[in-house]
Amino acid sequence: MQENKRDDIELLDGWFRALDGIGANGDGSFTRPGYTDTEDAMIGAVADLARERGFRHYADEAGNTFVHNGTGEGEYTLVASHLDSVIRGGKFDGVAGVLAGLFVLTKIGESVPVKVGIFRMEESSTFGVATVGSSLVTGRLNGEKLKSIRNNSGETLYGRITGRGHSASPQKIGGLKEYLELHIEQGRVLEAKKLPLGIVDSIAAPVRLWVTFTGRQDHSGATPMELRNDALAGAAVFITDVERFALSGSRHANVATVGVVKNSPNAFNVIPGEVALGVDIRGTDRESRNRVVRNIRRRAADIAGERSLACSVNEISKSDPVKLDAGLGKKLSDSAARLGIPHMTMPSGAGHDAMNFAGICPTGMLFVPCRDGISHNRHESAEIGNIVGGCHVLLEYLTHRKE
Amino acid sequence: MQENKRDDIELLDGWFRALDGIGANGDGSFTRPGYTDTEDAMIGAVADLARERGFRHYADEAGNTFVHNGTGEGEYTLVASHLDSVIRGGKFDGVAGVLAGLFVLTKIGESVPVKVGIFRMEESSTFGVATVGSSLVTGRLNGEKLKSIRNNSGETLYGRITGRGHSASPQKIGGLKEYLELHIEQGRVLEAKKLPLGIVDSIAAPVRLWVTFTGRQDHSGATPMELRNDALAGAAVFITDVERFALSGSRHANVATVGVVKNSPNAFNVIPGEVALGVDIRGTDRESRNRVVRNIRRRAADIAGERSLACSVNEISKSDPVKLDAGLGKKLSDSAARLGIPHMTMPSGAGHDAMNFAGICPTGMLFVPCRDGISHNRHESAEIGNIVGGCHVLLEYLTHRKE
Repeated sequence: MQENKRDDIELLDGWFRALDGIGANGDGSFTRPGYTDTEDAMIGAVADLARERGFRHYADEAGNTFVHNGTGEGEYTLVASHLDSVIRGGKFDGVAGVLAGLFVLTKIGESVPVKVGIFRMEESSTFGVATVGSSLVTGRLNGEKLKSIRNNSGETLYGRITGRGHSASPQKIGGLKEYLELHIEQGRVLEAKKLPLGIVDSIAAPVRLWVTFTGRQDHSGATPMELRNDALAGAAVFITDVERFALSGSRHANVATVGVVKNSPNAFNVIPGEVALGVDIRGTDRESRNRVVRNIRRRAADIAGERSLACSVNEISKSDPVKLDAGLGKKLSDSAARLGIPHMTMPSGAGHDAMNFAGICPTGMLFVPCRDGISHNRHESAEIGNIVGGCHVLLEYLTHRKE
Repeated sequence: MQENKRDDIELLDGWFRALDGIGANGDGSFTRPGYTDTEDAMIGAVADLARERGFRHYADEAGNTFVHNGTGEGEYTLVASHLDSVIRGGKFDGVAGVLAGLFVLTKIGESVPVKVGIFRMEESSTFGVATVGSSLVTGRLNGEKLKSIRNNSGETLYGRITGRGHSASPQKIGGLKEYLELHIEQGRVLEAKKLPLGIVDSIAAPVRLWVTFTGRQDHSGATPMELRNDALAGAAVFITDVERFALSGSRHANVATVGVVKNSPNAFNVIPGEVALGVDIRGTDRESRNRVVRNIRRRAADIAGERSLACSVNEISKSDPVKLDAGLGKKLSDSAARLGIPHMTMPSGAGHDAMNFAGICPTGMLFVPCRDGISHNRHESAEIGNIVGGCHVLLEYLTHRKE
């Protein structure tokens, strides 16, 4: 088993290294944006690895690629993830899941019909929309809507996709028996608990708000404290309250983050006249998360009232949390137990392609730890051995399932 | 008297309008940076107005310009201010004081030796240093130091000044009997008290700090609240405490402002890893102001300790508050009273050229209200009638002084 494991690690490590030259920035980071030549090169390189092993592959109308055993006909298990990255991201985010699929395919032979899915543009870095490829083929993103989504250069996502020969209104995906995805955790829960594996039971979804406080832009020397309407001082009270509301609701895995501050005019000698805050609120329980959102909205209005500021709250996106299949989760947990791999059940705070399939077929997800929880960063790192462990849990589940 | 006042207002208004074309952005704002062709044009235009009235003028080695009656020899009263502006500033800041000087010169005849001083680069907008021209000729700014002061393009202030034919180590100014400056308040105290005039008794001086909190940059979805080291959440507590310390010390005219926020990486889905805050702390009582600074420094360290953040505090500038001449202030007040102009004694929160002269000769300053306290902004506005009132107080003092 140890000998085998060493071989498995070598195999997977070799596949990672085969991709090291694509979209590399030379400092350990990778930039592989969705629907670009670089993403195409990633897909091509994985297709090459698959062909070397004798597998066939095809692309769907949206440009998602599927590698499969057998004929590719009939009902199948989809093991999928993505190969695109954020700007200056790491080598494991998404790639680990696709290579885990290829690993499963390599080991499982012909006994179980499996497809490895490579979904386009999972990251929202360039067009602000995440899980584009999987959303299009599950009917969760409308081709027409893509015409109104633009990148910083003004290009529409619709234009990008169709301009590269794909369809923005592709045929829906079919034949799914179940969906499985392995992903790095991108957090520090597993590391803190010293566990090599997590079974994901739910995926939190964000509500995103722009909260803007408007006060009076005044001279910072010439305006006594009592005559001020300092937008930033009000915003600061709000930021601490956002943290407080999320902490008090954290038993439902609620988290709330003020990640963006636009302070205006942002000068030493001027009292801030306007501050816009970008707030991201997530939870795995919709009601509990929405309660946090309501508290936050109410508090923003109260602070504005107390401090004679104007306040506006604009919801810029809202998606619902997703429960993964509890029965499938239990079976994955049993499989891990049979292999003697310690694990825990946990929510995912980040979104994944998996969430688009939870309404279509039984969907399960595995997390492997990443060092210091770092992701979307050149310091992103994961133990190949843990990924191999996760692959064996998938294999164990697929080959020894008791239904 | 009313007839005269109308003439006076027309005269001063005409002078303001003669400058309206210089550095105008077309939206009511003006950009007239120090040591540029635009500032030269302002000085040239005022020199033209002076020559029309038969006055002579000269420039010193630093490029400051002086318009005078008589021969310009011997001891004199200096009535001065500046003609440069911030980027997109208003038409009154500085200009009101120079034109007030020209008004006094026009009315006073030859009986009292008066020079109108036009000091270079009073605003810190481009090189981050204020009152440059008056600091150079009062020995408060060293020519060598200018070599280390750069604008955003990397140009040194030394290079700018010498490159335009001026000296960065000019001869000191001499012959001063006293220094007088009229300026718009740039705050809302006079407006709140419905008074047309303020007699400035002290000028607050800022301590400026960069306070940086460093935490952990993590995924905003994947990191539970309990595992976070959110630099912005710590910074927010600090911002509210800065306000609190200043409010509790406000009887000494202390004010403290967090005007600048640099939040990194400033993305919806990332917990802020580092936040740098620009803090400006002023007061007219040095000890009291320094106490506020000490409290703020201590609190920054405490917050960092409580939240497992790193914290650094860098003092980027520190100048001492300046007391203006109490005897001169009393005489200006008496002069206003003789003219029936209601007024109050007040500190200046903003810095002015006057502060460089307080250690050299009796120095006095008058404030006139500006609408809504707005300055450094295209909406900056002041009643010409109030400026005329201030001019008459200066004239009354100079022509009827009882020593």
